[in-house]
Amino acid sequence: MIEEKYQIVADFSVSAVEGIKRTGMKVLALRDRYAKIMMPLEGNINHIGTMYAGSLFILGEFSGGILHGVSFDYNKFFPIVREVTIRFQRAAKTDVTLEVALNRETAAQIQETAEREGKCDFGLKLDLKDADNQTVAEVEGIWQLRKFRAGQSIAGT
Amino acid sequence: MIEEKYQIVADFSVSAVEGIKRTGMKVLALRDRYAKIMMPLEGNINHIGTMYAGSLFILGEFSGGILHGVSFDYNKFFPIVREVTIRFQRAAKTDVTLEVALNRETAAQIQETAEREGKCDFGLKLDLKDADNQTVAEVEGIWQLRKFRAGQSIAGT
Repeated sequence: MIEEKYQIVADFSVSAVEGIKRTGMKVLALRDRYAKIMMPLEGNINHIGTMYAGSLFILGEFSGGILHGVSFDYNKFFPIVREVTIRFQRAAKTDVTLEVALNRETAAQIQETAEREGKCDFGLKLDLKDADNQTVAEVEGIWQLRKFRAGQSIAGT
Repeated sequence: MIEEKYQIVADFSVSAVEGIKRTGMKVLALRDRYAKIMMPLEGNINHIGTMYAGSLFILGEFSGGILHGVSFDYNKFFPIVREVTIRFQRAAKTDVTLEVALNRETAAQIQETAEREGKCDFGLKLDLKDADNQTVAEVEGIWQLRKFRAGQSIAGT
């Protein structure tokens, strides 16, 4: 379930970047510091009939952006991705989902550091799962929370 | 320049997987065991006006597939990707290109192993470059050459 206050985050996040929008990715649930997202198999099939590696990457990488929208002050900070490793474990033959969460203390610490220093790295380790709850890929990445400079804003907002 | 015998590889590789096709990726040059590919900025812009991380990943990951088409017997073997790390170095504000190559000995060795054992891993380390020849991202990955089993073939071919 998407909490009502986060509907705007869900809508913006899947439509603001064309490369995300055209995959058909869905936001399934959002609450404070938690997101569940889904990459549909339809439209994301590869040359051997399973989910395309690039679409699995997009699902994994998106976790940093959507988590940003439910964890940090998005009028003051924006996220970038620094580094991502994706390990493909088994062919994905269904829609693929991913859950991502931060605890309250970690989120507060990241935002305080970014407030003070202008930026703060944060790491995420994620399991991408098929409809049978089997892990199809593991993603480990480092994102960065950055403070807007005066007058700066996200394109399109 | 795309060598005439590889035009079919160029055409197939950018159209066979919808998630690749919709990025508008281009094959610029193909010859034996060498490829140069390009991700256009247009259609691949992110929330801060530079190239979307997912599109840079797709360019990097594609290198394994396109190299396959100019290095190995694609009627007998197909490629899969096992693991990719992408490190984003600087914002890409232009089209991004990538060159990938295998030497003759390495290519022969990989195919011989796959012929004998049914599969063979191979690693690639790649620089993704902008129009000023600056590296915008580094990609390191492990792909695998796999032998078709009897009756198996690539979807769509």
